[in-house]
Amino acid sequence: MTITPPALSVFEALESEVRSYCRGWPAVFDRAQGSHMYDEDGHTYLDFFAGAGSLNYGHNNPVLKRALIDYIERDGVTHGLDMSTTAKRAFLESFQNNILRPRDLPYKVMFPGPTGTNAVEAALKLARKVKGRESIVSFTNAFHGMSLGSLAVTGNAFKRAGAGIPLVHGTPMPFDNYFDGTVPDFLWFERLLEDQGSGLNQPAAVIVETVQGEGGINVARPEWLRALAELCERQDMLLIVDDIQMGCGRTGAFFSFEEAGITPDIVTVSKSISGYGMPMSLTLFKPELDIWEPGEHNGTFRGNNPAFVTAAATLDTYWADGQMEKQTLARGEQVEQALRAICEEQPGVHFRGRGLVWGMEFEDKPRASAVCKRAFELGLLVETSGPEGEVVKLLPALTISPEDLDEGLRTLARAVRETA
Amino acid sequence: MTITPPALSVFEALESEVRSYCRGWPAVFDRAQGSHMYDEDGHTYLDFFAGAGSLNYGHNNPVLKRALIDYIERDGVTHGLDMSTTAKRAFLESFQNNILRPRDLPYKVMFPGPTGTNAVEAALKLARKVKGRESIVSFTNAFHGMSLGSLAVTGNAFKRAGAGIPLVHGTPMPFDNYFDGTVPDFLWFERLLEDQGSGLNQPAAVIVETVQGEGGINVARPEWLRALAELCERQDMLLIVDDIQMGCGRTGAFFSFEEAGITPDIVTVSKSISGYGMPMSLTLFKPELDIWEPGEHNGTFRGNNPAFVTAAATLDTYWADGQMEKQTLARGEQVEQALRAICEEQPGVHFRGRGLVWGMEFEDKPRASAVCKRAFELGLLVETSGPEGEVVKLLPALTISPEDLDEGLRTLARAVRETA
Amino acid sequence: MTITPPALSVFEALESEVRSYCRGWPAVFDRAQGSHMYDEDGHTYLDFFAGAGSLNYGHNNPVLKRALIDYIERDGVTHGLDMSTTAKRAFLESFQNNILRPRDLPYKVMFPGPTGTNAVEAALKLARKVKGRESIVSFTNAFHGMSLGSLAVTGNAFKRAGAGIPLVHGTPMPFDNYFDGTVPDFLWFERLLEDQGSGLNQPAAVIVETVQGEGGINVARPEWLRALAELCERQDMLLIVDDIQMGCGRTGAFFSFEEAGITPDIVTVSKSISGYGMPMSLTLFKPELDIWEPGEHNGTFRGNNPAFVTAAATLDTYWADGQMEKQTLARGEQVEQALRAICEEQPGVHFRGRGLVWGMEFEDKPRASAVCKRAFELGLLVETSGPEGEVVKLLPALTISPEDLDEGLRTLARAVRETA
Amino acid sequence: MTITPPALSVFEALESEVRSYCRGWPAVFDRAQGSHMYDEDGHTYLDFFAGAGSLNYGHNNPVLKRALIDYIERDGVTHGLDMSTTAKRAFLESFQNNILRPRDLPYKVMFPGPTGTNAVEAALKLARKVKGRESIVSFTNAFHGMSLGSLAVTGNAFKRAGAGIPLVHGTPMPFDNYFDGTVPDFLWFERLLEDQGSGLNQPAAVIVETVQGEGGINVARPEWLRALAELCERQDMLLIVDDIQMGCGRTGAFFSFEEAGITPDIVTVSKSISGYGMPMSLTLFKPELDIWEPGEHNGTFRGNNPAFVTAAATLDTYWADGQMEKQTLARGEQVEQALRAICEEQPGVHFRGRGLVWGMEFEDKPRASAVCKRAFELGLLVETSGPEGEVVKLLPALTISPEDLDEGLRTLARAVRETA
Repeated sequence: MTITPPALSVFEALESEVRSYCRGWPAVFDRAQGSHMYDEDGHTYLDFFAGAGSLNYGHNNPVLKRALIDYIERDGVTHGLDMSTTAKRAFLESFQNNILRPRDLPYKVMFPGPTGTNAVEAALKLARKVKGRESIVSFTNAFHGMSLGSLAVTGNAFKRAGAGIPLVHGTPMPFDNYFDGTVPDFLWFERLLEDQGSGLNQPAAVIVETVQGEGGINVARPEWLRALAELCERQDMLLIVDDIQMGCGRTGAFFSFEEAGITPDIVTVSKSISGYGMPMSLTLFKPELDIWEPGEHNGTFRGNNPAFVTAAATLDTYWADGQMEKQTLARGEQVEQALRAICEEQPGVHFRGRGLVWGMEFEDKPRASAVCKRAFELGLLVETSGPEGEVVKLLPALTISPEDLDEGLRTLARAVRETA
Repeated sequence: MTITPPALSVFEALESEVRSYCRGWPAVFDRAQGSHMYDEDGHTYLDFFAGAGSLNYGHNNPVLKRALIDYIERDGVTHGLDMSTTAKRAFLESFQNNILRPRDLPYKVMFPGPTGTNAVEAALKLARKVKGRESIVSFTNAFHGMSLGSLAVTGNAFKRAGAGIPLVHGTPMPFDNYFDGTVPDFLWFERLLEDQGSGLNQPAAVIVETVQGEGGINVARPEWLRALAELCERQDMLLIVDDIQMGCGRTGAFFSFEEAGITPDIVTVSKSISGYGMPMSLTLFKPELDIWEPGEHNGTFRGNNPAFVTAAATLDTYWADGQMEKQTLARGEQVEQALRAICEEQPGVHFRGRGLVWGMEFEDKPRASAVCKRAFELGLLVETSGPEGEVVKLLPALTISPEDLDEGLRTLARAVRETA
Repeated sequence: MTITPPALSVFEALESEVRSYCRGWPAVFDRAQGSHMYDEDGHTYLDFFAGAGSLNYGHNNPVLKRALIDYIERDGVTHGLDMSTTAKRAFLESFQNNILRPRDLPYKVMFPGPTGTNAVEAALKLARKVKGRESIVSFTNAFHGMSLGSLAVTGNAFKRAGAGIPLVHGTPMPFDNYFDGTVPDFLWFERLLEDQGSGLNQPAAVIVETVQGEGGINVARPEWLRALAELCERQDMLLIVDDIQMGCGRTGAFFSFEEAGITPDIVTVSKSISGYGMPMSLTLFKPELDIWEPGEHNGTFRGNNPAFVTAAATLDTYWADGQMEKQTLARGEQVEQALRAICEEQPGVHFRGRGLVWGMEFEDKPRASAVCKRAFELGLLVETSGPEGEVVKLLPALTISPEDLDEGLRTLARAVRETA
Repeated sequence: MTITPPALSVFEALESEVRSYCRGWPAVFDRAQGSHMYDEDGHTYLDFFAGAGSLNYGHNNPVLKRALIDYIERDGVTHGLDMSTTAKRAFLESFQNNILRPRDLPYKVMFPGPTGTNAVEAALKLARKVKGRESIVSFTNAFHGMSLGSLAVTGNAFKRAGAGIPLVHGTPMPFDNYFDGTVPDFLWFERLLEDQGSGLNQPAAVIVETVQGEGGINVARPEWLRALAELCERQDMLLIVDDIQMGCGRTGAFFSFEEAGITPDIVTVSKSISGYGMPMSLTLFKPELDIWEPGEHNGTFRGNNPAFVTAAATLDTYWADGQMEKQTLARGEQVEQALRAICEEQPGVHFRGRGLVWGMEFEDKPRASAVCKRAFELGLLVETSGPEGEVVKLLPALTISPEDLDEGLRTLARAVRETA
């Protein structure tokens, strides 16, 4: 496939220099269906990025599309602030019936605004309010969002520098396997907590991703997560799982923490919750934490009702039984086999992942970018992650066909070979 | 009209106590069209709130609805991160042609995430980065959002307390007319800036709303805004106009600051920019401020393409000429006459406003809530604002018919009379 | 008198560039007695600066000197941490008998460390602990010290910049007469406190100097101080009077706030409390505020016992009756007359003051420095103050003879004339 | 020896509850000479605390006393702000000749105010100013002072809580041997610095004590200090050694870091620098860091000239050759032998130390207090340290006679035995 660089003039002339993905993927996209995107010049791309995990059910999933168009056609409420609506009720009931009740999760549901960072900001506010402390512990290479509260618990130095103010009230701790198993888990963290002279401000909460997506596909072991949950319990800290990217089935189960058998105090959900790529997010928490005053946190778009409609359709369609989880795990094995083959063939390449989130780390760090560039030329959309962009990150739609998955993995293998 | 309180069980059982509007308007809304909302029990409500200013063109505006459904039907890209898409290009071109170019505004356009607070966070980051200073000056009774950066420049003590950490780096100054004209404008602010011993940290920027919506419909005079712009220029501070609620034609012109003849350094736009109530926001700034590095600020839903589609349709339909502005000003006069009549009849009631944003302040502060409650019973949706909820706030759709407007104003007059 | 610049080599070679007074007064001082200092080259200087208010009883006051030498000779405890000592007891008894009891002041006494900034840090800590709030209100052109807590409530931009971190948790309000009487007192402050939407974080305390020394000899009127005390009472804020420079009789009465008839919640005392120029400070507070845990604040030199000895001697000698106050007020009148004469003769010069602290402000700001320079050449030590160094500040010893005072005032008049 | 509790009435009635040492040592001290203190009831105490390290040359050392009285007698300048004085010159010359030059240390000397926390505040300000960063790394169980800047890098949770505001801009790292040698030195610290995604704000400086006194007599190994110095060099961070308690010969050499062969960028000195227990402190730094503006940091008592006089006498008397160092190390061996014997006899007691600073840690933590209490009854002054007060801390004067040292160690052994 040969791709002629499109005319990007209005983007270059008018859009801020902050734009990013459009630089790595110099095409003007027009349509999308399932695992494919189409640019205006007629090129087709197989999408292994899925809106950074926002499109777990593929682009413009037909089931959701039908529900969405029906809703729009019949003039269902589009913008509802936090008024009660029939769409919101349908979502809440579906969420309770398909997700919370079968998992015996007691959570209250908050609509904190439609983006992930809104959900994180609400979670941090609530944790601080409940515990009456300011400090939050996060982990190395964490990513939680770009507004100031979320950014303060995000690891990336480049993004932190963008704040323009010193980011405080957060302390990083080593994520699982940060020292390749040479140091006992939580040795440093627990010692700081127990030592009255350590200088650590007593944290209100710990915020963690079970798999760090932006951080480089770092996978926490279930036993590490369990030990963390126990540490939080023991030390009177709330446990916040940020499941924005890894929730909604990305790792197999609906919530990524289910495998570990833990029940976080607070959970943030966004990205794929609407199923259709529309902005929506949730902050879930144990009922005893629900000490919010009415309106103490608000937001104009927290009632994005079309998103509620597709969200409910998603849950009813994909999460009424365990099929989706099984399928994701099966597809994950398919990916794992392919990556193993690549890594056996290519020295200096390592892989890791879980469910349908996988990463290939290159010892020769710039090579990861080269692989993505070559993959793009070959019609495959993949992106890097990790603190130095040294990891190629695979986030195919959960609904991808085995054939498309296979094709993409073959393209990827070729891109790796051709950048050796 | 008699309204039976609906069964709200799932909302009460599952949704967080933070929910708010649903308490004042105890109905379950189902459909909406233009200036009307319909609940599941068949009641009709005339909407004088318009999604807190997000629905300037009415609910589910048919022109936009057509464009939206067409886009969805043809599988246009829904979720696009910050990839280049044909929908984004169409929006950018329309925004340039209909808005920026005719007004001779030089702005670069940033998509900071889909909500107003995303736009404010990006504006503050950029201002701090450009000036290398942390401090921001805001105004009494300002409202800029709920994430930590925005909340720090928001006045409301109740919402600030929700942060759970001390909010710093912001200093409030008196908004226009804060002392009823008894103190010269900017006397305090300018003196602090000029006095090297004042203790004010030199601000990177000043953030202001031309009309404070949440703050109680406080209208800044054009001459005050001009003096503020000159002060910023003189004292090397960036001027940020937060036009999230007052932009998109709410005050007549597309931008609320046009009347004053000023060109802010940075402008935030959200709420009605998509036209259809879908999450979308913009941060605009002078090109010399565009010192962002690629990806230094990002966000999952910053490429909400269906919103771009309706946004472009809005601009092409309503902003290709000056008709919308004229109509808004005409409707505003209709409101003004009605409010004058109410205030002449009722002692202790005062009104103020501009374009199609108006407020009625009650000296007997709790009466404002009583008016809204009575209005709801009479089928009219209006809300309070102001630090103690003492102002009834009118934000009808700009597209409301004179007849509907008249009906709503008569209902309002009745609610005022009946709460005397 | 002609002064040859002395060899300053070791100072220039070894001492940090931060040194300051030695630059304006290029002499190497050797001895001092009463109101005179003597340099190593045999020049004599009349001292109108008195250690920035630390030498209210003159240099090496003979009464105190005797007590001090006796104490040292008999091996009295020099360094006592916060152990109980006979010297500390004698001081406490003298302070109670001569100062607190006659004035009916109920204060507990804390030894927070030997410097003024220690006393301020302790005062701010205690206020925050008592009220459970972080924010402190200070005033324009306030000076409270150089450690981070004190610096955050100090106005001077140059000194603030030295912090290297953003100084937060403090908000400046206009000091008395900041707008030359054109704005009602506390208009802005009280409005911010009463307006729930103002954006002001509710303060734990207000810290104020009754006369701002470093700020330019700005004298608060008694009625302004009374109104401030009432405002604090009404708004549940603690009132801290920083009497470090203006206490110990500088304005006439022992405490500078006595004239206003107020009883601050917390008072900081330092500079002249030891009487002999030795480091010592006190933080005084109402007994109900004494919620400190043992050792919660400490400091190595908080038990500077030789300073307790001279302090007790000072109180017994000068404060057992009202003579000192009368004499100070009389000397103050002598200064006032002289300054009036100068200002009547010289256009663009204004004076203000109280007790024995006076300032001459020059409209031609750099002239104040020129006056000090010329005065030094003429054998008189005076310094500038004010945000731009535009005020010549007179702080003669309270014990100065009328003849010396007259001589210094004549020298000053000559320096003013010769810089016209 | 039987001790009747003295009448403490004025202390109890008037002094704040914050008082601390006077509670553990319920006597009223009157005189002191060398290693002995005398209370007003005629009891004698052997002092193993030495003003928390401020009296390295004993109480009221006769050599210094002579110099001090002579200076006072001849009316030498007592209070000199930062004017040049003959006393300051003599000190600077003595410091250069006896201390800096022989050790080839290039430092500029700053007089930051007379207390240790003043010196630390100045050091932190300068480091932040030089590097343009806010963040400082400190170590677990560090103690640097009670003003807000110093407190933020102090570990003790109880003292931190006294701040009344969240202490930020500091991050603790594990001190040497924090994990009993099971984790490689600086593993965590260096990894955080190298990982661009770690979330650690890039530090301006690292502040460290070579032996943590308040923290429990934790002794850093020379190789650990060297590795720290190299890490700072490699990672562009300034190294600040806080030598307030451990400098002035406490560990043998004048500076405690000499043994490690490192040259810190900034050094803070206080406590024993005046030699006589009078408030004085220094901030030393490499000349290229001397970017202070004149007067950017100041303080009323930074020119405590009597302290300069005794300081110079100290240096001339004790530091003109290597005798003091040898003697201290010899006395240290005497202590070590005695402690070894105690610990061999008593299970659950461990000792550590260097030079003449030693600690005995009790596994049964409250026993350390009991030992101090019993020692006091037996006429020996010793105090606890460590996060839970589990360490008895020995800080005898460096000038103590072998006989007195022996007597104190025997009393200590008895107190340990009697609390078993």
